[in-house]
Amino acid sequence: MGEVIIRPLASGDREAIHTMLQTCGAFNDEEVRVALEVLDVGLAGGLDGDYPLFAAELDGAVSGYVCVGKTPLTRGTWHEYWLCVDPAFQRSGTGGKLQAHAEAFVRSRGGERLVLETSGRPDYERTRRFYESAGYRPVGRIRDFYQPGDDCVVFCKKLA
Amino acid sequence: MGEVIIRPLASGDREAIHTMLQTCGAFNDEEVRVALEVLDVGLAGGLDGDYPLFAAELDGAVSGYVCVGKTPLTRGTWHEYWLCVDPAFQRSGTGGKLQAHAEAFVRSRGGERLVLETSGRPDYERTRRFYESAGYRPVGRIRDFYQPGDDCVVFCKKLA
Repeated sequence: MGEVIIRPLASGDREAIHTMLQTCGAFNDEEVRVALEVLDVGLAGGLDGDYPLFAAELDGAVSGYVCVGKTPLTRGTWHEYWLCVDPAFQRSGTGGKLQAHAEAFVRSRGGERLVLETSGRPDYERTRRFYESAGYRPVGRIRDFYQPGDDCVVFCKKLA
Repeated sequence: MGEVIIRPLASGDREAIHTMLQTCGAFNDEEVRVALEVLDVGLAGGLDGDYPLFAAELDGAVSGYVCVGKTPLTRGTWHEYWLCVDPAFQRSGTGGKLQAHAEAFVRSRGGERLVLETSGRPDYERTRRFYESAGYRPVGRIRDFYQPGDDCVVFCKKLA
């Protein structure tokens, strides 16, 4: 197996992204639909737009992607909106490289911190541990935010 | 002085809202600009759109307004995006009536909780106390979110 490389996402990646959003198990139908809406806006705007997007590529296939964006009305806060790893490429290092690249990009644009929201459900524990081991700290929790029994956990990492 | 009444915001209120956003002291130029952008989207969409808007009226003048919206990808969570009281109408009961009306509207649409974000700065203590006395509880705090020394405090109230 070759090395994971990170590059700007291109319109030709859209079908691969659609498939991995559906198969990774983290997103319901509405979340997939909204992720693709944001993807299309991000592709149209490019790296200087509201939703810069990066793809991970491994052995010629797209193994994951990440979507970030500057948080309106803040000086240097950014949000990470979506991170998805194709289930066929779990444990390939894709998630960690996407995360590190997103942080480097945000830093290069003067960003000072990265905020993200994820589920507090037990089946998201691996996701939360991924962010914690990458240096993110929980800064908020909204009970039953997504639906009853499904809290929102807010994570933040200081980059500057 | 008459009684504060709450009604849907109308396009004819836009100038009064613009003035109160500028004079109330809570919002900088960028925040006023974004508030008006959201106001225009909300006026176009009406009460069934993404940003329902309500005005408070007292003795024939607009004394304040509130903007809410259903939170995407949640079952019953709504956000309160803006609440502004004209400084000439402080202590008129405008804020409390707008807040109560926003909650009743969200409940009528099946909303189960209302989330809002405000500043952690000392000069926003009166704002935070207003929400706390209305039943909101702090559920998160993101340090230096808006700018250094200006935290974001997330409040939530369960409505259902």
